[in-house]
Amino acid sequence: MKVAIMGYGTIGSGVAEVLKTNGDIIAARAGEPLTLAYVLDLRDFEGDPIADKIVHDYKAIVRDRDVKIVVETMGGVEPAYTFVKAMLEAGKHVATSNKALVAAKGAELIRIAREHRVNFLFEAAVGGGIPIIRPLMSCLTGDVIEEITGIVNGTTNYMMTEMTHEGSEFDDVLRDAQEKGYAEKDPTADIEGYDACRKIAILTSLVAERQVDFEDIPTEGISKITATDIRYAKKMDRAIKLLATMRAEGDSYTVRVAPYLLPPEHPLYNVNGVFNAIFVRGNMLGDSMFYGSGAGKLPTASAVVGDMVDMAKHIDKNIRLRWEPEKLQLADAGQQKNRFFVRTTATESEIETSFGNVTYINIDLEDEIGFITGPMKECDYVTCAGRLGQVIGMIRLG
Amino acid sequence: MKVAIMGYGTIGSGVAEVLKTNGDIIAARAGEPLTLAYVLDLRDFEGDPIADKIVHDYKAIVRDRDVKIVVETMGGVEPAYTFVKAMLEAGKHVATSNKALVAAKGAELIRIAREHRVNFLFEAAVGGGIPIIRPLMSCLTGDVIEEITGIVNGTTNYMMTEMTHEGSEFDDVLRDAQEKGYAEKDPTADIEGYDACRKIAILTSLVAERQVDFEDIPTEGISKITATDIRYAKKMDRAIKLLATMRAEGDSYTVRVAPYLLPPEHPLYNVNGVFNAIFVRGNMLGDSMFYGSGAGKLPTASAVVGDMVDMAKHIDKNIRLRWEPEKLQLADAGQQKNRFFVRTTATESEIETSFGNVTYINIDLEDEIGFITGPMKECDYVTCAGRLGQVIGMIRLG
Repeated sequence: MKVAIMGYGTIGSGVAEVLKTNGDIIAARAGEPLTLAYVLDLRDFEGDPIADKIVHDYKAIVRDRDVKIVVETMGGVEPAYTFVKAMLEAGKHVATSNKALVAAKGAELIRIAREHRVNFLFEAAVGGGIPIIRPLMSCLTGDVIEEITGIVNGTTNYMMTEMTHEGSEFDDVLRDAQEKGYAEKDPTADIEGYDACRKIAILTSLVAERQVDFEDIPTEGISKITATDIRYAKKMDRAIKLLATMRAEGDSYTVRVAPYLLPPEHPLYNVNGVFNAIFVRGNMLGDSMFYGSGAGKLPTASAVVGDMVDMAKHIDKNIRLRWEPEKLQLADAGQQKNRFFVRTTATESEIETSFGNVTYINIDLEDEIGFITGPMKECDYVTCAGRLGQVIGMIRLG
Repeated sequence: MKVAIMGYGTIGSGVAEVLKTNGDIIAARAGEPLTLAYVLDLRDFEGDPIADKIVHDYKAIVRDRDVKIVVETMGGVEPAYTFVKAMLEAGKHVATSNKALVAAKGAELIRIAREHRVNFLFEAAVGGGIPIIRPLMSCLTGDVIEEITGIVNGTTNYMMTEMTHEGSEFDDVLRDAQEKGYAEKDPTADIEGYDACRKIAILTSLVAERQVDFEDIPTEGISKITATDIRYAKKMDRAIKLLATMRAEGDSYTVRVAPYLLPPEHPLYNVNGVFNAIFVRGNMLGDSMFYGSGAGKLPTASAVVGDMVDMAKHIDKNIRLRWEPEKLQLADAGQQKNRFFVRTTATESEIETSFGNVTYINIDLEDEIGFITGPMKECDYVTCAGRLGQVIGMIRLG
C-alpha cells in the first residue's frame, strides 16, 4: 500500500523514520507493508534518503490512485486544508498532527471523509504521542464525560517545572527553553495558552459532538507567572500548572485555559518537564489519566503511524466520528465556581471588606500579602477584586 | 439491537446499570439502542428490574438470532468457555471481563471469532476500567513495545498503601480490606499475585502475538511483606508496590510478578489505594502511562460497554487481533539483572564475603540489618544468598 507525507519538517520526517525503523512490525499489523511513495515539500532535501520521493505539487499525489493513505504534517490551516480536502475527495485516507487545522476544520473534514468512505484521523493533534482521542472515542463510549483536565503543552510545563525547581524568573527559563529547542523563537502560541486552547477545543468538540470555536474559550497563559508566585505556591505546598479544562453538566460545557495551583494529591501534580497528561472523568468509569510524551518528533510520529495502521485496517470503512459543524454555545465561564489565590498590596482590613473571610499566605514580603478566597463565582471574584483594587496577580486553585 | 448478559454478579449487574443510566448516549454512539433482552444466571432475582429477562439455559440466548452482542461476566474458565464458544459459533459478538478465561483460552476464542466474522473483546479483563488493550492494539501500532509495568491489582495496592500510611501489619490490613469489600474472603488470588500474573500473561500474549502460559511466569505476591519492610522502604525513601512486568528485547520476553521498591521519580510511585496504572514504553513513543480504576462494579462495566459499542460499530467486521495459539517460550528470568534489597541476621563481614560491596540500610533493629546489592543477575543473587544464609527477606528495586 502506497502512502505519502505532506510536509517534511520535524513530525513528517519522524513519520518517515518510524515507517523505516519499525517497517516489519507495522506491515504485520497493517496487513501489508506501508510504502512511502511521495514526500510533498517546497524543499528538495538532496542527499536525504527520501530525496527521490520529493514532489512539489500536491496534485501528483492526488493523481496516483495507488496512494491510499496520506499524512499531513505541514501545520497551519492553509494550504494544509486545501491539500487534505483534495486527498479526501480523491478517496484517500488522511492522518494529521495539525491541531490548528483540526480545531478550525475538523467537523468539515470528518464529513468529507465520511462522504468518500475514508477516514480523517488526528490522534497526534492532541497530546502528541499520548493515546487520548481514540480512548475517548472508542473506549469511554459507555460513559458521559464529565471532565477533561489536561497538561497539553510541553513547553509551558517544562518552564513551570524549571521555575519550580530552580526558582528562576520567567524570562530566564524561556531563554533556556529556547536554547534547548523546547520553545520556539516566537513562543507566543505556547506561553499565551493558544496551543492548549486549540487542543481543548478539539477534545470538547469530540465530547459534545459539535463545533467548539477556540476563540470562545477564556484563555490565559503563563507569561505573568513570576518567581514570587512560585514562592507562594511552595508555601501553599502546591504546584503551578497550565491546565486546559472542560467541565460538562448535562448539555452545558464550561471550558478554560489558565494556570492553576494544584495540591500534591491532584493526579496532574507530578507531571513534570516536557511530559503531558490528560485527566478524564466519566460518570461510570470515574477518574482516569493518560500520561506520556506530548510532543517531540518520534512520539508524535508514533501517533500518526498508529492512525495509518488503523486506516489500513479500515481501508474500506469509515470509522464513525461524531463532530457536527453546528456551533456549540459554551456556558458562561463567569458562573464557574473556584477558589482564588490573590496577591495584593492592600491591608488585611481592606481585603476582608472586599472578600470576607480569607486564608492568608505570607512569605514575608514587605509590600504585599497573599490570600486564598473561599469558593466563589468568577464573576463575583471580578467584582470583589475590582472593589479591592491593588491586585498584583491572581491564580486559580485546582 | 438485542444484547444479553451472562452472569449477573457485580460486573454483570454493573453492565445492566451502565446500559440503563447512559442508554441514550450509548445508542447515539453505537448507531442504535442496545436493548438488554436476556440475563443468564442460576438465580432468579425476583423483584429486580431485570427479573423478567432471566434465563437459566444459555441455549435460549444462542437460539435468538436477534441477539448480536453477548457479555460474559461469570468469571472462571468453565462453564464460561463453553458458553462463549457457543455464542461466537452462533455468530454473536462477545465482550468479557473474565481474565481467567482470556488468559487460558484467548487465542482460541479470537480465532473462532475471526472464523465467524464477529469479535471477541476483553478490554475489562486487564486494568478494569482503564483503557489499555485497545490503546496497545490500535494506538501503539507504530511502536515496538519494549516494556509493560503495571500495578494491575487494586486489592494489593490498597493493602500496600495502607501498610505504608498506617504502619500496620499485613494481617490487620487484610482484615480491614476484607471488611471494606476490597479483598475477597479467600484473598489468595490477589495477595499471592495470581490475578496480576494472568493479566500480564494476557498483555504479553497480545504484544508477542503468541500464547503466554501464566504458569510459566515467576510470581511472588505480597503475603511476606511486613511492617518492618515498610519501615526499611521509608528509610530508603521508596514505596513497595506489587508489579506485573514484561520486558522485551527482540524476540526475547522476560515476565515477572513481584513486589518492588520504587523510588519517588518512578511513574507508578504515586499510584495509591485501589487505583491501577500501567506503564508502557515503546521504541518510538517513549514512556506512557494509563491510570484509573482497575476494578469495581461501574468502572469495569464501563469498559465492557465500551467493547459493546465498538462491536456495534463493527457488527459485520472482525477487528483483527493477533494472538496465535503457538506457545511463547519466555526468556530465562534468572538472567534478568536487578538490584536487591536484602534483610539478614548475618554480620557485615559475612555479607561482604557473599555479596561484595553493598549499601547498608539501618533502621536500628537489634537482630538484623538491611542492605542493597549492586546490579546482578537473579541467578547470581540466588547463589550469593544461599552462601550467606540467614536471609529474612528480599525485595527487588524498581
